[in-house]
Formats: sequence, structure tokens, C-alpha cells
Amino acid sequence: MSLKDSCAIVGLGYTDQGKVPGRSGMSFYLEATRNALDDSSLDIRDIDGLIIQPCPTDRSVTAFTLAEELGINLRYGADQQLQGASACAIIQHAAMAVDAGLCNYCLCAFADTSRSAPQGIVYQVAWGTGAAYGMFGVAASYALIARRYMHEYGITNQQFAEVAVTFRKHASLNPIAQMRNPITIDDYHNSRWIVEPLHLLDCCLVSDGGRALIVTSAERSRSLKQPPVYVMGMGQGHPFEDPMRRSTLTVTGAAESGKKAFAMAGITPEDVDVCAIYDSFTFVVPMQLEDLGFCSKGEGGAFVEGSRIALGGELPINTSGGLLSEAYIQGWVGPHEAVSQLRGDCGERQVPGAEIALVTSSGGVLSTHTTLILRK
Amino acid sequence: MSLKDSCAIVGLGYTDQGKVPGRSGMSFYLEATRNALDDSSLDIRDIDGLIIQPCPTDRSVTAFTLAEELGINLRYGADQQLQGASACAIIQHAAMAVDAGLCNYCLCAFADTSRSAPQGIVYQVAWGTGAAYGMFGVAASYALIARRYMHEYGITNQQFAEVAVTFRKHASLNPIAQMRNPITIDDYHNSRWIVEPLHLLDCCLVSDGGRALIVTSAERSRSLKQPPVYVMGMGQGHPFEDPMRRSTLTVTGAAESGKKAFAMAGITPEDVDVCAIYDSFTFVVPMQLEDLGFCSKGEGGAFVEGSRIALGGELPINTSGGLLSEAYIQGWVGPHEAVSQLRGDCGERQVPGAEIALVTSSGGVLSTHTTLILRK
Repeated sequence: MSLKDSCAIVGLGYTDQGKVPGRSGMSFYLEATRNALDDSSLDIRDIDGLIIQPCPTDRSVTAFTLAEELGINLRYGADQQLQGASACAIIQHAAMAVDAGLCNYCLCAFADTSRSAPQGIVYQVAWGTGAAYGMFGVAASYALIARRYMHEYGITNQQFAEVAVTFRKHASLNPIAQMRNPITIDDYHNSRWIVEPLHLLDCCLVSDGGRALIVTSAERSRSLKQPPVYVMGMGQGHPFEDPMRRSTLTVTGAAESGKKAFAMAGITPEDVDVCAIYDSFTFVVPMQLEDLGFCSKGEGGAFVEGSRIALGGELPINTSGGLLSEAYIQGWVGPHEAVSQLRGDCGERQVPGAEIALVTSSGGVLSTHTTLILRK
Repeated sequence: MSLKDSCAIVGLGYTDQGKVPGRSGMSFYLEATRNALDDSSLDIRDIDGLIIQPCPTDRSVTAFTLAEELGINLRYGADQQLQGASACAIIQHAAMAVDAGLCNYCLCAFADTSRSAPQGIVYQVAWGTGAAYGMFGVAASYALIARRYMHEYGITNQQFAEVAVTFRKHASLNPIAQMRNPITIDDYHNSRWIVEPLHLLDCCLVSDGGRALIVTSAERSRSLKQPPVYVMGMGQGHPFEDPMRRSTLTVTGAAESGKKAFAMAGITPEDVDVCAIYDSFTFVVPMQLEDLGFCSKGEGGAFVEGSRIALGGELPINTSGGLLSEAYIQGWVGPHEAVSQLRGDCGERQVPGAEIALVTSSGGVLSTHTTLILRK
């Protein structure tokens, strides 16, 4: 069997985002849920499925404590955690549960208060004994991969800069983006090193905020307020075969997750009109584009040059500003922007005639990966 | 579409269980995985899906750290947490992922070291300000429900005792059960109060141990070592509509999850040969039997009398000893025993001719609930 086009995303919920102090994780889940319901014209009592990514800064929130706050009966519920890969994975999970008949309207939600949480959650991972030698923090791990990528394929900081500048330009057209002031290539090079070869402007934001969206069957979607956006293809890829990952340092899980998603959708990269690519760091965008088949391995650097990935270019990517300039929220901004593009709701940053969108999310320093293909 | 019979459970992995000091959560996940692979005749490299319930005593284990330890590439991975309802929910999730073509062989696993963990995990939940008034601990919450159940339907401690004595008798036939010494009705009444009306022998065990099982497609299952056990029906039910649950204190999520599972399987309670019912406390067995339709509401007490639920009775339940006498392991013992019964592997405690089994798991003091129907 195939899930292709059997389900649709019918409601999007946003909240204030960026630096939003004094808010609990639960308050963001609730606000995002209310806004997704308003957007969809559904009533809270229609929701009978709920899958959340747990809030990193408030572990008391589960699908069930949230259901209790919402006062709803669930016929399907789950907490699902795949770190940064959760957003697309949870939408996949919701589509499977709806398709299986286990629930009719499945709410997917996430909230984070990492930017303002008093406890000061730090995105910092110690890799075993490495920390004793100064090897700590997510950026340090990504820096090793970036360096290897430069070494193997000759990709440059100049090409990383193209990604950063392009996404900031997109963010300048997005009223809710956290960083809207345009930057130049020089600004990129002049920004301080975080861990060489990564500048400050290679790194994504840390944000407060919440997101919710609603998945239902294709059939049910047709009677709702918004034009349905169908889930056309999906896949995951989590390469761990070599724990040291020496042989695969520059190949992401997108190689597998993209292959499966394109196979289910029955399309090729040429058919995609707009992308939302998980951009925890600039360089992971060209790397995933290679693994997804938008260009050959090693050609990602050239691919992101010359405004090809900018609005008006051949393949507009991260039209909201992405994780680098819109907001982080663990990758949940990607599916929302893709759905908005396919609805034609993006105003100044709309990709004309966008019919098919590809979204990725990734965690575990690129080793967990999910791909979603959506269509109008 | 329907998932009915599209997937099968093809491998079971056990570990030492009960009081097993000095073991890490990860070591139980790994041992259970190895044993499930041996049981199924699959190779570790066949596994391309992995869904775990996180270990309560070792939060460093995720599907991805486990995949890394196993050295495998995943095409589908998830951490899924539904507390005590996780076991059946994860098998459902695995069946959906296999059916959707997202992976071929999905390993489902859990481990717990709560019995021996030095940090002394305590199964104790404070309900808001209630703790200040002495209302804390899982048993306290269950006790309120038990008292209400007695008040509304006249169920008695004598009937609770029937459940405890029956399951202990079953455990005496199970070489790996944590509690194998038979008990009498008098032993039950003489055991100390934990929270009235619950005696010590109303309460399930706390255990160290791990469990793993493997789900694949019906088609692939036919070429493996063990006779396949098909996933025939599934459902979930998580009633939260009334946060105080006043109107539903004696109705569990089984009312909804059972209805959906029976509908998918296309059978009725009369067709079930053997059950594994989540027995965190004795009285929740008759309560779930009512909600599942094995008897009318309020008749569960009478239903569990007269050896009806014992081996040799009309509907043998928890033939391994259940959570009360085999081991707790957050409800993972149920699916394993049900599969073993349908394979005909239960030796002295085998239910002759067992063809269809019903399994439940539940969390959140009976408010989260999953049902699974399996067939030979």
C-alpha cells in the first residue's frame, strides 16, 4: 500500500516567536493549538489524535497533560522524540495514524522556551571524553563535518555565505522572522568564529515559540476552510552503521529519506517548486541538496551560488528565512512555510505557482533525517 | 484501508528480570535485542526500523544511541513515550511504519532498572497540591478509583483477591516469573494495606529487565523461523474530556481502544481465546474486561470469580503471572506472553488451541489505553 496523497495538512498554528520571555512551554502549545484550530475552522472537540515533540525546557508537558489542558478525548496519542528530525517525523506518524483509521484529526505540536528559559538550556552536547579536550557544543561537532566537506569537495566559506545572506533576505520579507535586518557577504565573513570554519552567521538561532498543525484524511480535508495540502511522499534515514561515521561524514540521512520520499511521491527533484531544508548550519543545506539528488555529490556549493536558491531563482529554499533567520523551534518552521507556500499565502515572499514542496528535518548532528513531500 | 493482518510479530527477546542489580538500561536493551534476533533467525543488519520506549532510569538511551550501539542504519526510528500504555502503542506504531513501506523489520524495545537503580526511582506521582494533604503515590490515585468502583458496582476485596491468587498461580508455572510462590485468598487479606482499599497483593511488582520484539510484513514473516503472529486489530483510547474525570472514574480508555481494535479485527470478545490485560492493580482487570465488552459494566467482579480467568477456565488471563506476579517492565510482558501462547510455546501454562489473543496496556492511572488483537 501507499500513503501517497491519503492525508492532508489542514491547519497551521503559530505563536509569538524569537525572544518571548515569561512564557511556559505549555502556554505555547496551547496558543499554537488554538491558532491551528482557528486556521482550519475545526473545533477543539474534533481533535481525536495528538502527537507532540516534548518541550526541551518543560518536561512536564506530554500529549496527555496537553490533552487534559485541552479537555479532549483522544483516540490516538503519542510523545515522539527525534530531536531536530521530529517535525517531519511527527507529520508522517500522524498521516499513518489517520490513514490506519486510528484517529480522524491529528494535532501535531511543539513548543520551546530555550531562548528565555531561566534555567538557561544550552545547546551543548559533550561527546564522551572529547569534552575534556575542548570538544563540546553542537557547533564543534558540525565544524568537523564542515571541515571535512571543504576538504573533500572544495566547498568554501564564500558559498556558506551565499546561504546565510539569501535566507536573511527571505526573512526580511517575513513579518514574524526573528532576524529581519539584511546582511551582506562581508557581514558574514566579519562575523566572529564560533568554531572554525563556522562563523556566527553560519549558525541557526535559538528561539522561544510554538507550532501546531492538523493532519486529516484527504476526504475530510476537502470540506474545511483552507485548501488542503496533501502529504505526497515521506521517508526517514538514520545512518549509524559506522559509529565513528568516518565513511559517511559528508553524507546525511537525506540520501535514504529523500529516496524513499521521492519513490512514494512518484516524482523527481525536478518536479519540486520550493524547499524548506533543515538549516541548523549553512553548509548542511548544500550537503542535503546533494543527498536529495538536486545536484551531484560535491556540487552543492556551486548549486547555492548565483541566487539559484533565492526567491526568483530556480529552486527557492527557506523562503521564510529558515532556522538561520526566521526562528529555530527545532525545525518546525519548515513544514509551516511549505504549507503556506502551497496555499499561496506568502505575500511578498510567495513563489508563484508553487505546487510541490519538499521539507526536511534532521537531528543528531545530521545522522537522523526525515523528508516530507507536500503538494497543493 | 485497514492494517488488519498486514503485519506480524516474528521475534521475541527476553532478559533476566526481577531484581537484577548492577545492570544498565542499555545492557538490557542490547540483550533483549540479541535474543529477539536469535528467536527470529534475523540478522542485526536486517533491522531497519527501531522504536523504543525510553528507559525510566537511563535517559541517555534513545532509538538513535541504541542504533549506534547496534551499528545499524535505520530507515525508521522513534522514541515513543505513553508511559504504561507504550508497549501496545509501539507495536501499533511499528505495524503502521512497516505497512506504509517506511521500514521492513522494525525492532520494538524497552528496558527498566527501577528495581535496582541506585538512584531509587520511586513510582510516585504528586497530583498538584494534593501531596500536601497526603495524596501522593500511584497507589493513592488508583485507590480512589478502586473505592469508587466498589461504591458504584459493589465489587469487593474478595473479588480482587481472586485476581491476585489466580495470576500468582499462573506465575508458579512460569520459570522466569519474579514471584512464583503460590498465595491464598487469606494471604491476600492478611497482606498490609498500601492505601485502603488496596492491599500489598493488589499492587504490581517493580522490576529490572528488558524486552524486545520484531514486527515485519505478513509476507516477509512467512519465511522466518517462528510461526508468524499477525496483528489483527488495534486501537487507542485516552479519555480526558472531563479533567476531574468524575463522570468516568470507573470507565477506562479500554472502552474506546477495545471498540476500535475489535472493529479492525472484525471479531467480538467471544472469539478471544486468551488475554494479557494490563494489571497494574488487581481491580483494573475486571474494570477493563467490562469496558472491552467481555461482560457488562459492573459485572467484572463476578466475571473474575470461579476460576473463569484461570488456566483451564473460560477466558484465561495473564497466563505468565502478569504485572502482579511475572514482572512489571511497564506492561511489556503482555505482548510477549500473548505471542508465546499463539505460537504454542507456553509449556505447562499453554492454553490449548489458542488462536486469538487480546492484549492491553495502560498508563496515566488508566486514562491512556491501547488494545492489540493478535492471531495465529
